[in-house]
Amino acid sequence: MPRIFFNEVVTRDGFQIEPQFVPTDAKVALIDELSQCGYAKIEVTSFTSAKAIPMLRDAEEVMGRIVRVPGVEYTVLVPNVRGAERALESRADELNLVMSTSETHNLANLRMPREKSFAGLADVIALVGKRAAVNVSLSTCFGCPMEGEVPQDEVLRWAHRFAEQGVRGLTICDTTGMAHPAQVARMAQALRERFGGLQLTFHFHNTRGMGLANLLAAVQAGITRFDGSLGGLGGCPYAPGASGNICSEDAIHMLQAMGYDTGIDLPRLLAAARRLPELVGHAVPGQVAKAGRTCDLHPAPAGVDELRRSFA
Amino acid sequence: MPRIFFNEVVTRDGFQIEPQFVPTDAKVALIDELSQCGYAKIEVTSFTSAKAIPMLRDAEEVMGRIVRVPGVEYTVLVPNVRGAERALESRADELNLVMSTSETHNLANLRMPREKSFAGLADVIALVGKRAAVNVSLSTCFGCPMEGEVPQDEVLRWAHRFAEQGVRGLTICDTTGMAHPAQVARMAQALRERFGGLQLTFHFHNTRGMGLANLLAAVQAGITRFDGSLGGLGGCPYAPGASGNICSEDAIHMLQAMGYDTGIDLPRLLAAARRLPELVGHAVPGQVAKAGRTCDLHPAPAGVDELRRSFA
Repeated sequence: MPRIFFNEVVTRDGFQIEPQFVPTDAKVALIDELSQCGYAKIEVTSFTSAKAIPMLRDAEEVMGRIVRVPGVEYTVLVPNVRGAERALESRADELNLVMSTSETHNLANLRMPREKSFAGLADVIALVGKRAAVNVSLSTCFGCPMEGEVPQDEVLRWAHRFAEQGVRGLTICDTTGMAHPAQVARMAQALRERFGGLQLTFHFHNTRGMGLANLLAAVQAGITRFDGSLGGLGGCPYAPGASGNICSEDAIHMLQAMGYDTGIDLPRLLAAARRLPELVGHAVPGQVAKAGRTCDLHPAPAGVDELRRSFA
Repeated sequence: MPRIFFNEVVTRDGFQIEPQFVPTDAKVALIDELSQCGYAKIEVTSFTSAKAIPMLRDAEEVMGRIVRVPGVEYTVLVPNVRGAERALESRADELNLVMSTSETHNLANLRMPREKSFAGLADVIALVGKRAAVNVSLSTCFGCPMEGEVPQDEVLRWAHRFAEQGVRGLTICDTTGMAHPAQVARMAQALRERFGGLQLTFHFHNTRGMGLANLLAAVQAGITRFDGSLGGLGGCPYAPGASGNICSEDAIHMLQAMGYDTGIDLPRLLAAARRLPELVGHAVPGQVAKAGRTCDLHPAPAGVDELRRSFA
């Protein structure tokens, strides 16, 4: 069975849409704790403008204060050349660039057409050169909430254009939880056939309850890298009340139960997940932090032993 | 692709542990609505004593008042001969009997050892004869919260004993959400090899977020019958705050998106699911009722069309 690698996105993808600013100290403490849990990668923060994403306005300070653990890569979201300069200055291991495969979603989210996004990101890739790894996250690969299903060929076309630019990896994002397992299996196969030399990461949302089923389908199709968010933090503006990102600890718990090596210290990760509701001030969607692992057994209720003896 | 059949358990498995009694009129109206949604089977109620399960004390009245739709089977839970007599009197199409494959869980839940449960259920099966179909739900097949994993051979042993009694079907229950997809695939294969002539139904819980991943694994292994609960109602006393039964409409939505015929009118089912929180007085775990189907698209935000034109 292949080793499965996790990239933890809670402090970027989760915290960026929290209603309350998570204090810098708490961010640093959480990232330092996550660094001890065995992640392959942690998406620490975003070098966007403080006006665009005020919740991550402390990007430099967070990157400067976290304790880097050897073997863990620290990646940051970067929207443009200005962000890339800040990210390189902060010694990020990887810059994660983002654009949508849906024209309408790119216009709605990044306020420009895809071609303009691509040109800007190509400039970033050229600027970075060999100073850091570059990953590109392609949004809405399994469907756009405004356009509907995005054809697989359209995803492959953008993947190809970025592969030509020399990126190390691609993240195939189900931005609003529209993927289903059969579609995931087809996408995984097509990408592995064409881009076997790239780091291929899949990013799922649980908006319609299919998150871990999609992860299973991707693992079955040979994908070994996944994004996850502690507690399942990180919502979806199109679906009030619905879940966002797949929950890291639930995904890891499932894979470990199936026998996969994820490199993660699950009890330590669950301890961190159980502190999350207090940190953000509300309940979070993750299930295993509430229910315990399948191997965490309960004592029999009172009277069962007497009952057992009485029938012996 | 095989047709997939759903058994809706919300009015039995869901309502039995609701803190507030769901009025008989509301139960009848909901079942009559579910009967129009295309279910293969509906588990209407339970013929247990009103003292044991007060929330289902109106079993006779509900069975007497619902409008039976041809093609839908109406099944009821029956714990013993007394319950079976009441169920037959109420003209149930199927009697669903239950015991645990875990000795400790059977003692805790049914207050007797498994052998005594089996003997009692064998009496029920003999009593029913050809007057109705009999299904046996085997609890804790994928793990007991007190004993841990239940060996697959133990599940097969109990399945075999009931098959010998001439039951029509077996439901393999993950009572507290401990199953993982690899275990489900193995169990499905073993059961299909040995009991291909029986109706095999799988019953999953989403307690640890694995519900739909397990359903996917079961479908991949050739299982075509599933229990589901509207809204995901029906909790687990061992995991406060965690989800219970898999959510019917989320499961059906996933399978339909993958191209499976479930026979279900999903828009109608979602309309029923959206009325559920008001009926029970609290939020329910189901996701698709909140987020909408993947094919329910959203208008582009204000300004996107102007933006698109400005770059044209």
